[in-house]
Amino acid sequence: MKNENLNVAIVGATGAVGSKILEKLIERKFPAKTIKMLASKRSAGTEISVGGQTYIVEETVPESFEGIDIAFFSAGGSISRKFAHEAVKRGAVVIDNTSAFRMDEDVPLVVPEVNPSALKGHNGIIANPNCSTIQMVAALQPVKEKFGISRIIVSTYQAVSGAGSEAIDELGEQSKQFEGRSSIKAEILPSASADRHFPIAFNAIPQIDLFDDSGYTLEELKMMNETKKIFEDQKLAVSATCVRLPVVTGHSESVYIETDLNTTVEDIRSAIESASGVVLQDDPSSQVYPMPLYSEGKDEVFVGRIRKDPNHPNGFHLWIVADNLLKGAALNSIQIAEELVK
Amino acid sequence: MKNENLNVAIVGATGAVGSKILEKLIERKFPAKTIKMLASKRSAGTEISVGGQTYIVEETVPESFEGIDIAFFSAGGSISRKFAHEAVKRGAVVIDNTSAFRMDEDVPLVVPEVNPSALKGHNGIIANPNCSTIQMVAALQPVKEKFGISRIIVSTYQAVSGAGSEAIDELGEQSKQFEGRSSIKAEILPSASADRHFPIAFNAIPQIDLFDDSGYTLEELKMMNETKKIFEDQKLAVSATCVRLPVVTGHSESVYIETDLNTTVEDIRSAIESASGVVLQDDPSSQVYPMPLYSEGKDEVFVGRIRKDPNHPNGFHLWIVADNLLKGAALNSIQIAEELVK
Repeated sequence: MKNENLNVAIVGATGAVGSKILEKLIERKFPAKTIKMLASKRSAGTEISVGGQTYIVEETVPESFEGIDIAFFSAGGSISRKFAHEAVKRGAVVIDNTSAFRMDEDVPLVVPEVNPSALKGHNGIIANPNCSTIQMVAALQPVKEKFGISRIIVSTYQAVSGAGSEAIDELGEQSKQFEGRSSIKAEILPSASADRHFPIAFNAIPQIDLFDDSGYTLEELKMMNETKKIFEDQKLAVSATCVRLPVVTGHSESVYIETDLNTTVEDIRSAIESASGVVLQDDPSSQVYPMPLYSEGKDEVFVGRIRKDPNHPNGFHLWIVADNLLKGAALNSIQIAEELVK
Repeated sequence: MKNENLNVAIVGATGAVGSKILEKLIERKFPAKTIKMLASKRSAGTEISVGGQTYIVEETVPESFEGIDIAFFSAGGSISRKFAHEAVKRGAVVIDNTSAFRMDEDVPLVVPEVNPSALKGHNGIIANPNCSTIQMVAALQPVKEKFGISRIIVSTYQAVSGAGSEAIDELGEQSKQFEGRSSIKAEILPSASADRHFPIAFNAIPQIDLFDDSGYTLEELKMMNETKKIFEDQKLAVSATCVRLPVVTGHSESVYIETDLNTTVEDIRSAIESASGVVLQDDPSSQVYPMPLYSEGKDEVFVGRIRKDPNHPNGFHLWIVADNLLKGAALNSIQIAEELVK
């Protein structure tokens, strides 16, 4: 792909991730000649100002993609299924931040620090993994590369911004009701499309997305299946428990791994320290460890609390935190685009 | 022990757990003739009214325990170390809710649903386990009894009330600062005695209590060591990651277990359903699962999200929730006393 004067479109321009994509494109000086902001008919006409420039949102129609080189999709799976092929037909490369195509065999699922080579020979659509998957594989990649990983058991601590702007507003409103917390009303979480809704303020909801017949949620299955695809290892044992917290932005993960080779906490720290995009914050004696509140607005994946499991010769625990809207979504999508134009 | 007209003392009467002990003693019609409320000199004279009766707090001195039959201690390890033996010397049985004596060989560590027989031949001090341990062993006991358990990996989601009344107040204040969350000031958590303090509102802190040289926190080591002692199985593989959340009351736990015998999700559900003190809340298709906000004020331990780990023939995941001030502290202490006078 040419590497300058690109025409870019953002589908889902008014959403939590869409607005971050615009901000990051400008901040990172992505070689875009034009940026077209697309959303639903309802949002058409909305003005978005970033970096002294105003963008007017247009309704997404098939013709929106005429002349577009790269289209970032972040407006939900149904919109991607409806318009991604229309964009590709018109010559655009689609970088899709929904789960619509992630597990399709001919669609690369890419975290640039982990599997950039998967981009070769794509068919016009490239999938951005789920937020909780991205930060985990980015942090584990240097460990996998040096020592191999055979098993992952992860419990997540996920922020509401992963469920969109409405979920952020809901947490903001509910947080005022500390004294009356037993009678807080809820309308959005755990999932706008679920039958029942529960308060997130002063609570933890062990459901993200809907349930599968297996008893796992779709979010948990995404983490399990996407990790295997990105690591190109179908034998990798992964299981996940995904939980939503009263945190605005910043997903945290308590991750247990078993390495193939014998190693030490120090060696794992060194491997992570020398990896790109990942920052080691691991000094218990000075209370240094990652926390979601401090990850907000940061590009990197933060790792700490690395320690040996006393019960397994190759077992280790890690605590992995990242901004779910940036590395977990907008930033990773742009890094994929940067990789394409490199 | 005689089972009526008992003289009872509560040490730490003004604390989050102490006040719950008084409430629960009255609610459960514990055969107490008198209840003496003890605390620090600073709190002496404080009036506490429960059930139409007013109790005046007295300063704890060795002589406070003259004539006392049962003394509940919940004022921190140093107070227990200072006064527990004074109480025993004067004929009282001490039920201690601190970590002071839990790992002492001659001190039973008891969850009545799990190991009531450990009470036999006690030497005057009985330890109440750590809140996060109690709910886990109570929920796992019926599974262990039927199928055996060889391995436990747990990640916790713990409420601030486990850190006392001041931590509850701190969360209440900080929760008002949704918009200004990046500049919230903190004074209590993760631990009043720690060097650094971090906001808990809109955050998750992967530190509860202080750090050990091993890189584990004392809270994590408590869960690991106490579980082995209560289950009377030093070979049991247990490892824990303990995290504090912006939840007022109600600890949650994401627990992975490996059973000795082959079994099924249905069999594990049945075992839990028929156990006392434990309530099964596990119907994903109707979004039925335990949540901390709804555990507040409840006596039981709630279990849901039970599912098979696809990677291990005997691996299962469970989500365990309980009121950390009740079953995790006050209620379990009283159940120990009830067992003694039975």
